[in-house]
Order: sequence, then structure tokens, then C-alpha cells
Amino acid sequence: MHNGWGAKHLVKFATSQIVSRPPRLLAVNLRHPTKQQTHVVHNFNSGPSVLPKVVFEEASRAILDFNNTGLSILEIGHRTPLFQAVMDEAVALIKELMQLSDDKEVLFLHGGASTQFFQVPMNLLPAGATAAYLDGGTWGTKAIKEARRFGQVHVLGSSADKNYSYLPHDWQVPAGMQYVHITSNNTIEGTQQHEWPNTDAPLVSDMSSDIMSRQLDFNRFDLIYAGAQKNMGAAGVNLVIINKELLGKAERDIPAMLDYRQHIANGSMLNTPPVFAVYVCMLTLRWLKQQGGIAGIEPINQAKARLLYDALERLPVFTPTVAPADRSLMNVVWVMQDPALEAAFLAECKANGMVGIKGHRSVGGFRASLYNALEMSSVEALVALMEDFARRHG
Amino acid sequence: MHNGWGAKHLVKFATSQIVSRPPRLLAVNLRHPTKQQTHVVHNFNSGPSVLPKVVFEEASRAILDFNNTGLSILEIGHRTPLFQAVMDEAVALIKELMQLSDDKEVLFLHGGASTQFFQVPMNLLPAGATAAYLDGGTWGTKAIKEARRFGQVHVLGSSADKNYSYLPHDWQVPAGMQYVHITSNNTIEGTQQHEWPNTDAPLVSDMSSDIMSRQLDFNRFDLIYAGAQKNMGAAGVNLVIINKELLGKAERDIPAMLDYRQHIANGSMLNTPPVFAVYVCMLTLRWLKQQGGIAGIEPINQAKARLLYDALERLPVFTPTVAPADRSLMNVVWVMQDPALEAAFLAECKANGMVGIKGHRSVGGFRASLYNALEMSSVEALVALMEDFARRHG
Repeated sequence: MHNGWGAKHLVKFATSQIVSRPPRLLAVNLRHPTKQQTHVVHNFNSGPSVLPKVVFEEASRAILDFNNTGLSILEIGHRTPLFQAVMDEAVALIKELMQLSDDKEVLFLHGGASTQFFQVPMNLLPAGATAAYLDGGTWGTKAIKEARRFGQVHVLGSSADKNYSYLPHDWQVPAGMQYVHITSNNTIEGTQQHEWPNTDAPLVSDMSSDIMSRQLDFNRFDLIYAGAQKNMGAAGVNLVIINKELLGKAERDIPAMLDYRQHIANGSMLNTPPVFAVYVCMLTLRWLKQQGGIAGIEPINQAKARLLYDALERLPVFTPTVAPADRSLMNVVWVMQDPALEAAFLAECKANGMVGIKGHRSVGGFRASLYNALEMSSVEALVALMEDFARRHG
Repeated sequence: MHNGWGAKHLVKFATSQIVSRPPRLLAVNLRHPTKQQTHVVHNFNSGPSVLPKVVFEEASRAILDFNNTGLSILEIGHRTPLFQAVMDEAVALIKELMQLSDDKEVLFLHGGASTQFFQVPMNLLPAGATAAYLDGGTWGTKAIKEARRFGQVHVLGSSADKNYSYLPHDWQVPAGMQYVHITSNNTIEGTQQHEWPNTDAPLVSDMSSDIMSRQLDFNRFDLIYAGAQKNMGAAGVNLVIINKELLGKAERDIPAMLDYRQHIANGSMLNTPPVFAVYVCMLTLRWLKQQGGIAGIEPINQAKARLLYDALERLPVFTPTVAPADRSLMNVVWVMQDPALEAAFLAECKANGMVGIKGHRSVGGFRASLYNALEMSSVEALVALMEDFARRHG
């Protein structure tokens, strides 16, 4: 673990570097041009979560008339040139935005990341062989449970002792591991992996809740998977990026729909794909490209997270739950110093149009998810409310 | 097989019984009120396929603002009351429209019907036990292939000898079968099961391409599955109706995401469900209820199919490929008497706004899919074109 690569830490950004975007109020008005609606919505949902306004607008139009065909995007055949162009563009945008090398295959699959918890070992872990897993949060724990159905698991480290409020450090990958599995970002607990191991074993990562949010050398990973419903689109499709040289070694009878090789051979259309979900991914990836890609969005994500973490550190009413070095840029988790104030703060959030701010039941307190499409103005509104609340209750 | 129940045959309907609906031209104009668009689209796609216009309109609105929340349906959390209400209504509509008894569990799952090909035997077929399958078409063949990974398969009958252009009859279910699996409607070959076996074994049916189109005693089935993208909604979600007493007998280690019991215990939200796809199902089921439910739509489906099959029988230029007793009300398949005319007829279909009319590559010729939402006027337009073409080329 000591020779980390691609390490990313929270960076302070000067105000001039913070790219501001139009407030959500404007967005809401644009959605109802005749209504003069004035309430503001700040969507801090952990997933499904906020997407860019232009994606909603384009998707809404395509449901009535996709590309001037007179047909809805919901009624076009998946084996038509109309949809093939969508799939091709989505795959090309993934490759371009993540700067993937030619040996990487890009798949859009059904089933969400939870399906990958067992599909990865089913395809990669021969019975009797061992894979190394980091137990850094709820998702990693579930992935370990599924992997044990297929082979042996070596747990590199675990932060279960403190409810996953930090990430295990100072672990090493033993020799002979079939692969190493690490959750890139823990949506529930609000931790994020900022260092990656130097290892000869293939590296597998569940990047569901921070994919496309920060620059990494994605080619150093042999398999990446991510549910779309945070930074990439709507719920109902899952991205899998795979180095196909890994496949065919598990010597196991694999159902067709679970065999990565069959999905690769069929260009993610072994059966009817989730057409609309792939389309929304394509739109979201187009938008991300217009923002300057991952390099363009990363400093904005850092600035949003910095603004909120600074407030949590500054205002004693609020207590961040995660060890500073392991904090996530995507999911910011805190509790109230006085738990009796939780209900009052939650009510004020609600009154101010802040949605999805309640913490996961396993952690309690609060969680604000700051995905790519969340506007800086939403974080500013939350911080302003926190400061005001702190003045009244501090 | 001789004591069939719920048998449904093609029935001639008097004109007065045919409920006519507004022509698609109107629908297209409504979609573009300012464009004065005049081209007509007739969507004969086999799936994803045509859905009711009101579903497109409501879904399009919900992507901008779901139920006046100021939030898109794509950005609401699946564990919110907002989405729980959608899931609850979709499940309730399934139970109501199919008149399901209380022992039936209704699930909305990922992965499409192709995932059920292996998930059914994984959950229901112990190693060494035997299940009976009817090999009546492409989907049945694929289901058999997947079942053989888990246990033994007894093939009740096969129509592979004539490219599945008919359904096997005069078969009997042997004693000791773990379950009997029958494809209700063969989308590709255009056959439909009109008789069902009397058997003590649990009855399992893939109803992907004719669910909600005809009345059956659905309680006689122990497991029904169906991809949504024909009669129920958009691609990306799969309906599973299951008698849970079947479960827990396979004595096999089943990954969480493949275990029906876990999906039942979690109300189809073991992981993030395909929110939008479930929502579109709910809208489509609401529409179906407004049409008088399955009892209301069935005679319209029969009338549409009768109109087209009558033309195929009457016009020698066209040759239906399926044995009369086994013809599908949903997917009507034919070839040209003179194959040299195929390209000309296809070009005329295209020029007249008829989409998705080309036959599946394994059958050739033509296929018109007449799902619930396809308007009678589209079938009338197709038949008018066929008559005109026959006059010129007869």
C-alpha cells in the first residue's frame, strides 16, 4: 500500500477556480416556464440522484420524439441503427472520457453493481483460488460475501471495528491472489479510496459512486464496474469495463447472461438491453464532455466538497464522522453534536427544498451527496443554512 | 395435454365489437402541436415496441417534474415514499389485472427474461432432478440450454424439424417432473400456446410477448415471467410472479441477487431497482385498466390479428408461415410467395411509415407485432397496403 499511485487528496481551491453554475432556482423555472414556480430544489440524494438539467430536457423530448423519427425512444427496436448509434456513442464516450486503452472492453449490463458482486468471482475466481478484498464499507462486505460462494477470500483489511468510518491502511497484497477487489467510494459511510496498491494481481474496483468524478489512471484497473445511477445516468444499467484477457480461466459452467465473454461478443446486446437507461447515460456523458470531461469536473467536485467539509469543521454543532484522510468528495456524512437537534435541522433542510439529506439508517445523522450534476449553488445553500442554524443553536 | 384448460382460439368478431381508436396520425400531430407534421408512423416492432400515447406523454412530463415535486422521476431515491407509491401501485395493478390470488408474489427484477432462463432452474431445479420443457421456439430452446446447467431436462416435444413454424401437440407430462416450462408466445416464429397441460407439477411460463394480452387463469401458473418491453412498458425490467411455496427446495448456494426469496423479502428493492422502467410499467398498466383490463383488450387484439391473418389467407402474394391452430395474436409472420418481391414490399412499407416489419433473420420474410398499444388503424393501413400491393403484383 505504501507505493500508492494516482493518489488524490482534498485540495483547497482559490475562489477564482470555482466554476459557478446557474442556481437550481433557474432550472426549476425553466422546467415550468408558465408556472412562475419559485421553490428551489436541492437534490442531495445518494442515488438515484441529480442529473444535469439538459439531460432531463433532452430525455423528456426523446420520449415524445427521438431524433425526429416520430417514434419515442421507448418504442425503438434495440437492433436498429437508431439504437446502435446510441450504444456506440455511449461506449465511445466512456473510452474517450476515461482514456481507455484498446484492450479494454466496455459493457452496459443489467442488474446493478450488486449483480457484479457475484458475477466478478463467478467469472474470475476458480474454485479453490483466492482473491483479496478490502472490507472498507457496506458494499465491500457484500462483495466479500458473494465471492466466498465461489472461492477463497483474503481480507486485506477491515474498518468494521468503527462502523467503516475510516479506510484500512497499511495493508499489503500477498502473492498468489487471483485478483484484488477494492470499493472506490463508500456511498453509505462517506469514505473514498485515495491510494491504490502496487500489485501484479489484476485490480478490480466497484466505482459505482464516484466514477467519472475524479481523474485516475483507469487503465491500471483490469475490471471496473459501476451502477449508472449516481454520476452516469438513471437507475437500470451498469457499466463494466474489462480487460478480456482475464476471462476464461475460472473453468466453471457460467449461464449465458452471466458470462462476460458472451456480452462482449454481442456488444452488450446478448438480450434486450435497458434501452432508455443506456440513452440517459449517453446524454450524461455528452454533458460531461462539454464540462471538459473528468479533468473539467474534478476541481468543481473538490471545491464543492471543500466548502461543505470546511463548514463541518468550522461549526461545532455539526460533527463529520469520517477520518479526514479518507473523506469522500461524493458523499459527505455528519451527525449533530447534540443528537436532539437532528429533527430540527432535518425539518429546516426540508423547508428549504433540500432533498435526500437524511443519513443512511446504518450510520444515522446526515449525508449530502455531491455528484457531478449537483450545482455549487446547492452546496452554498446548504452551508448557508448550516451557518444560520449554528448561530441559532451553537 | 388433452384436458387443456383456458384454451383460447382465434375468434371472428363482428365489426360492432371492434373498438376503434384514434388513428396514429392524430397521435403524431399531438406530439408536435406546432409542427403540423403529417407523416404517419405505424410501429410493428417486436420489442421494444409501441406503447400508449398517454404513457409517452405522462413519462415525458415526469422526467421534467414528477408529481409536482420539482424533481425528475430519474432523480428520486428508490427508498422514498415517492417511489414506494409507484412500486406499490404497479404491483397492485398486476394483481388486479391478472386477478392473482394472495399466495402469489409479484416482483420487478433486472435482467430481462433471458436472466430467468437460468434463474428459474437455479432456484427450482435440484441437481439430479428433472424438469419438463416444451421446445416450441427460439426462447424455449435457450431456456432448455440454461436449465441443463442445473439439472436434467425432459423435452416434451419439439418443432425444430420445421423451424418452429408450429407448436408440438399430443405430448404428456411424465410423472416426477420438478416443474413444466412452456413459452406462452414465440415472438420470433409467431406461434402462441392455446392449450395448457393438466399436470400436478408446478407450471412455469415465459409470457414475455403476450402477457396482459389475453385472459388466462393465471393462478394455475406457479411461476410466470415476462420482459416488460412488449405489452407492459419499456425495456429494462422483468416481471416475475411466483408462488413462494416453490422456493427453498433446490438446496443450492444462490447469490443474493438471484435468490427469489431475497427479492420477495425486500419488495423488489434488494438493490436499486430500474426506477423509470417500473414507472413506465405502472403507467402502461393504468392505461390497460382504463381499457377495461385484459378482458377489454383481448377482443381488440383478436380483431387486429383476424384482420391481418384474413388478408394473408386471401391474398396469394403473401404466405403465412405458421400452422393455423398455432398462430399468435401478437406476432404475425409471413413470407412472399415470390421471394423476389420482398424488397419491393419492404420498401413500400417503409415509404408508408411502417416500422419494424422485417422478419427475424432466423425466419426471414415479414413480421408484424400487434401488441396491446398498437392501434387498429395501423393494422388497417398495413392491410390496405397489402391489398394494393397484391393488385399490382398478383
